[in-house]
Amino acid sequence: MSFTKSPELEMILRTMREFVYTEIVPLERPFLNHDYDTLMPLIAEKRQKAKDLGLWLPQIPADEGGMGLSLVEHGYVSELLGQTLLGHIIFNCQAPDAGNMEILIEYGTLAQKQQFLQPLLAGEIRSCFSMTEPENPGSNPTWMSTTAVLDGGDYVINGHKWFTTAADGAAFAIVMAVTDTAASKHKQASMIIVPTATPGFQIVEKTSVMGERGYGWASHCEIHYDNCRVPRQNLLGSEGMGFVIAQQRLGPGRIHHCMRWIGICERAFDLMCRYAVLREVAPGRTLGSQQTIQNWIVESRAEINSARLMVLDAAHKIDGAGSYAARDEISIIKFYVAGVLQKVLDRAIQTHGAMGMTDELPLAYWYRHERAARIYDGPDEVHKRSVARRILQRYA
Amino acid sequence: MSFTKSPELEMILRTMREFVYTEIVPLERPFLNHDYDTLMPLIAEKRQKAKDLGLWLPQIPADEGGMGLSLVEHGYVSELLGQTLLGHIIFNCQAPDAGNMEILIEYGTLAQKQQFLQPLLAGEIRSCFSMTEPENPGSNPTWMSTTAVLDGGDYVINGHKWFTTAADGAAFAIVMAVTDTAASKHKQASMIIVPTATPGFQIVEKTSVMGERGYGWASHCEIHYDNCRVPRQNLLGSEGMGFVIAQQRLGPGRIHHCMRWIGICERAFDLMCRYAVLREVAPGRTLGSQQTIQNWIVESRAEINSARLMVLDAAHKIDGAGSYAARDEISIIKFYVAGVLQKVLDRAIQTHGAMGMTDELPLAYWYRHERAARIYDGPDEVHKRSVARRILQRYA
Amino acid sequence: MSFTKSPELEMILRTMREFVYTEIVPLERPFLNHDYDTLMPLIAEKRQKAKDLGLWLPQIPADEGGMGLSLVEHGYVSELLGQTLLGHIIFNCQAPDAGNMEILIEYGTLAQKQQFLQPLLAGEIRSCFSMTEPENPGSNPTWMSTTAVLDGGDYVINGHKWFTTAADGAAFAIVMAVTDTAASKHKQASMIIVPTATPGFQIVEKTSVMGERGYGWASHCEIHYDNCRVPRQNLLGSEGMGFVIAQQRLGPGRIHHCMRWIGICERAFDLMCRYAVLREVAPGRTLGSQQTIQNWIVESRAEINSARLMVLDAAHKIDGAGSYAARDEISIIKFYVAGVLQKVLDRAIQTHGAMGMTDELPLAYWYRHERAARIYDGPDEVHKRSVARRILQRYA
Amino acid sequence: MSFTKSPELEMILRTMREFVYTEIVPLERPFLNHDYDTLMPLIAEKRQKAKDLGLWLPQIPADEGGMGLSLVEHGYVSELLGQTLLGHIIFNCQAPDAGNMEILIEYGTLAQKQQFLQPLLAGEIRSCFSMTEPENPGSNPTWMSTTAVLDGGDYVINGHKWFTTAADGAAFAIVMAVTDTAASKHKQASMIIVPTATPGFQIVEKTSVMGERGYGWASHCEIHYDNCRVPRQNLLGSEGMGFVIAQQRLGPGRIHHCMRWIGICERAFDLMCRYAVLREVAPGRTLGSQQTIQNWIVESRAEINSARLMVLDAAHKIDGAGSYAARDEISIIKFYVAGVLQKVLDRAIQTHGAMGMTDELPLAYWYRHERAARIYDGPDEVHKRSVARRILQRYA
Repeated sequence: MSFTKSPELEMILRTMREFVYTEIVPLERPFLNHDYDTLMPLIAEKRQKAKDLGLWLPQIPADEGGMGLSLVEHGYVSELLGQTLLGHIIFNCQAPDAGNMEILIEYGTLAQKQQFLQPLLAGEIRSCFSMTEPENPGSNPTWMSTTAVLDGGDYVINGHKWFTTAADGAAFAIVMAVTDTAASKHKQASMIIVPTATPGFQIVEKTSVMGERGYGWASHCEIHYDNCRVPRQNLLGSEGMGFVIAQQRLGPGRIHHCMRWIGICERAFDLMCRYAVLREVAPGRTLGSQQTIQNWIVESRAEINSARLMVLDAAHKIDGAGSYAARDEISIIKFYVAGVLQKVLDRAIQTHGAMGMTDELPLAYWYRHERAARIYDGPDEVHKRSVARRILQRYA
Repeated sequence: MSFTKSPELEMILRTMREFVYTEIVPLERPFLNHDYDTLMPLIAEKRQKAKDLGLWLPQIPADEGGMGLSLVEHGYVSELLGQTLLGHIIFNCQAPDAGNMEILIEYGTLAQKQQFLQPLLAGEIRSCFSMTEPENPGSNPTWMSTTAVLDGGDYVINGHKWFTTAADGAAFAIVMAVTDTAASKHKQASMIIVPTATPGFQIVEKTSVMGERGYGWASHCEIHYDNCRVPRQNLLGSEGMGFVIAQQRLGPGRIHHCMRWIGICERAFDLMCRYAVLREVAPGRTLGSQQTIQNWIVESRAEINSARLMVLDAAHKIDGAGSYAARDEISIIKFYVAGVLQKVLDRAIQTHGAMGMTDELPLAYWYRHERAARIYDGPDEVHKRSVARRILQRYA
Repeated sequence: MSFTKSPELEMILRTMREFVYTEIVPLERPFLNHDYDTLMPLIAEKRQKAKDLGLWLPQIPADEGGMGLSLVEHGYVSELLGQTLLGHIIFNCQAPDAGNMEILIEYGTLAQKQQFLQPLLAGEIRSCFSMTEPENPGSNPTWMSTTAVLDGGDYVINGHKWFTTAADGAAFAIVMAVTDTAASKHKQASMIIVPTATPGFQIVEKTSVMGERGYGWASHCEIHYDNCRVPRQNLLGSEGMGFVIAQQRLGPGRIHHCMRWIGICERAFDLMCRYAVLREVAPGRTLGSQQTIQNWIVESRAEINSARLMVLDAAHKIDGAGSYAARDEISIIKFYVAGVLQKVLDRAIQTHGAMGMTDELPLAYWYRHERAARIYDGPDEVHKRSVARRILQRYA
Repeated sequence: MSFTKSPELEMILRTMREFVYTEIVPLERPFLNHDYDTLMPLIAEKRQKAKDLGLWLPQIPADEGGMGLSLVEHGYVSELLGQTLLGHIIFNCQAPDAGNMEILIEYGTLAQKQQFLQPLLAGEIRSCFSMTEPENPGSNPTWMSTTAVLDGGDYVINGHKWFTTAADGAAFAIVMAVTDTAASKHKQASMIIVPTATPGFQIVEKTSVMGERGYGWASHCEIHYDNCRVPRQNLLGSEGMGFVIAQQRLGPGRIHHCMRWIGICERAFDLMCRYAVLREVAPGRTLGSQQTIQNWIVESRAEINSARLMVLDAAHKIDGAGSYAARDEISIIKFYVAGVLQKVLDRAIQTHGAMGMTDELPLAYWYRHERAARIYDGPDEVHKRSVARRILQRYA
């Protein structure tokens, strides 16, 4: 692998791997069985341990209390954490908190940082990001109905959101709302921090997604904002910056997702290989002796390798030249890696037969919930279109 | 369409369609919300209505109280019922009961028919089919560990099964167990009827499948048979016929599944088209104006049409020459239609974006649970191998 | 197969099959070696034999001297002829002559029929169809630059065409040219018969296609029409009917192509299976024992079966209700069968390894020249778009 | 791109690109028209120019007169040369000469180097590599029928080879022949240098491949070795090393091919984009405005990027740890990049419509002749199997 790892990174990864496979993977069972009473104290315990090991907040700069990794380095870390259903939550780098931390660091006032960022970094609270609306296509971030109107020193927010991930139990939401309908398309919306205890912030329900309503950070809420009033000081950045901040949030966010997906792929690949050498289709003849299974294994290996190289390459470019310079690469890995993920999971399930359908393994969970990988943060089609148009513009 | 429908069939289909879309589709919501308290009385009511309309047991010969349709005709019916999550259960042609009815009609003694078949046909009880074992590959039906040993006038059954669909609430199971380990491979096993109230019949748990343990007919059980003792008269057919009966059960069973899958495809197709003309990606520009969506629609149309023709063609061959003569066709549609199903569902979900992930529509349910279509009743790989070998034998 | 064949058709097919495999397949070698001196007298001899056997003009009504088959029947015949590179030319049902015969029968005046149709039916001359222009997209038949201007009693034609198949050695061309630029889009063009001996009809070159310039009926010409003057009586149908006649010509023409492609698929499938049981990858282990090869075989079998059923279904609909009623089905098979063709040929070549690249077998010829199947008579994309739009209109 | 290029390499690439597009691309037309009389003097002239520019033998160490590039560096160079049909021949790094140079450098005696290597490096002669036999699968290099028997001081060679690329006009062949049938499987064969003027070296014919017999370096010969007698000193390495040398030759050879294929992909991509912005499907609406074409473009971009990264990553590993350590990576890129190549060429042709079928552009040439990319130097299936087995061994 040509994106070489420093000895320090190698050591971090070794420690993490040990931690992940020894202590976190066993927590998958209560999670998959919706046994949150068992699960939540264990998560709290492992989070403390992650802190103690100095592995807390891998994606955050050192001066904010994180590990201070480059994006390429975090790529390796995130891939490792992605190998278990609970990796990111335990190291406090899960979506949507990770993205919220980033924009609070970048745009937050001192007061906002003290009130919202500090406890988030400490893992004392969780947050959510409230952007997608059921009535408007998420693929078109400039088309939004939620409004925030200044009234005295307050914003009064009205609107209807859904797929606000992790709202259940969150301390605050960062809400995207239109503050100026007269402005140009990309300057109409702003980001506003809304504590969930604010009157008018109303969770309609945890949406049933792929048969499950989930729990806490692993759920998606439908929310009504009903004359929800917050002080003007809760504006993030300045008015009209909603779109810009959203884009900035999404750039590295997509990289984080891609890295995590590669971790999922590696775990699925590992499970597939283990099962292939173990399971007999006839006495003495293993699944792995079947050429069809061999094809799935090697094709998965090829695709995962290609996906990782592309993600690291994009991370490398972002580290060097920023998200904007790498926007084609980011869009390409967004749909490409999501596609690899779906294929690899599908093969891993088929290899496991009936077992692959069950919740004995995390495969079925990823199969159903990561189907959304091709949808959230811009569906495949939107990313493809953007890149293709930019390419063709160079030829026009 | 060249497989012409008689005017009688046309009328049946019209009546059914009306019934399905007006009265059954609305039951999907409580089903998808696991609200069985609401659902079950409604199902009972609709079942009575299906009886009243003379649409009960479409797959059963007239002299057994069914509609007496040919397999081609049942193909059209089953496709219609498959368009809703609850079609087959309401018309009493759901797996595994439909298959159990068939083999009881064919092999049952008069006593067995009175005790087990009659109430099953009447819809007073449900049943299950207990064949797959966790320790042995379901793809190899001659490899089985459960045993039934004659002791006095009884069979004593010991073994471990899973994916015994619908065992939860069933009145009896038809169990496949080895009765003669010394016999040749295909003659070792027998089918035995085991009332679920028999001591030693023990449901370990409803297996968690794709995040859900399900309910009643829509669940899959792990079962221990622990010195489970039933009278010798509960043997179905004669000793050693287990494999033969299983094969006979699976032949039309696969056709039934394929027909149902085409119904699912048609519903998914319809939902996709409806959404495409409704949902705007920008003011005034619908999803359906996007060429990518158009491609999905027309490719789905082509694949569904091809799938239907192949299933009807196989049904036509079975009607004329029997399952054995059509075994290549059956194997081919088993993997081919399952593949089309997966592709069409995937496109329908992607078209719906976030909405496609939710349980507002049946798409996500089918996406996750019908992933098993490529696994149960013989995984793709087993069917492909069988057909390819038979083809190559003709060249050897 | 549910599209049953009459005993008469069965007998015709038996006779043809014998003829095709015994007498025509051996002619492939000189054809593939561009040895036309050897080939052409043999073709003449086999054409006479086809006439003697009463197998001449299978696609033509009996009262015009053809076999008078229905389109479904011709489907079976055409599939058989398609199994060899030279089937259609020998039975005088090759493109573009077959299409020209059809429109001359439908629209030709008595004089036109005597002069052009009779010798064509008799196989004494060949013809070509001159529509596609290099400067305008063939996918848009209403966009055309060639003009025909009335001058006295003559049309004077000027323009530039290419991919005029079989112009080399043809006695006449049917040329599509704009006769009224002021008319509505679909009424601007007309069809005019132009003897190739007419001054101003100038073959620029046989276009090099996939490395070959070809010969006679198996070549594609670039043509300049340079003040090419023909009598007004050479107009086919009436002025402005060019588009209508072209569409009418293309409908069954697409069916003919699809049927032929299925024949190619069957030949490729047969060659693939023969080689699989013969070729050893190690002493005693044949290619056919490899699961990958088995997968290709059974997937090809499934796809070919599905393609045939769809083509016969479309032919059945045309036989009953006409081309217009079946236009969705025609468009669907056009791209679907072309896709199957490409996949089957690709697998057959891969199975043969280096041998598959050579001209020892017809596979490589079809692989390169039938790549055009996804392009001519409307590229995939155009057909997909038309069908999708019609489907969505029903939902709008 | 994270595999950074030194300023020196950047300059070389700039010079080469200018040379390739200004002076070599125009030579494609006579090549595609089989006009070798025009072509060959031009090639000689450009080769001289390449020497004058110091761009000769990019793949060869500096102390042998080459450019002394690392494999990663040569990757970039080879990708550039691959963008034209004639790049490699003009820079004297074409197969099979490049591979022959490598093994002569590694294993040649001083005399062999003087007689065979020097004029080869100088571009004064060409050579060929005679390994594949029609009767034995090329995928199994230990199964070979050609023999070389010591008789006095000479080897007497008898056998039948085909697909000996570039034998037409070559000065010598390196022949693989069995020298010891009693040895273990991998030690039976040896490599022997056979001047083509040797009596008994007999070119049966240039094999017709995809319709063309080709010319000189761009042809594939069938050869009989009929008591072909060469001095013992023509043995390359020692007896029994045939397999080892062949493997060593193939490792980097596969990398070279992959790099060249990426060049082809880039050219095809460029042609596709150019045409997309130029060609109108209706007045004012370009091909490139079609979402289907946009999808092809962005999917091609993604796949080419992934392919390049994988090839550079493998080259990097070979540069650092040698071919053996990188054998999984080599096998993976061999089938992966060949697959990307086929897809990209296919899309580029479809984008061009009828034009894509013609020899106006190099696309159709690559489409037909590079179909062999999935076959030569180990078909996809062999590479997949090898890698899968090694992966599974680690789990066993």
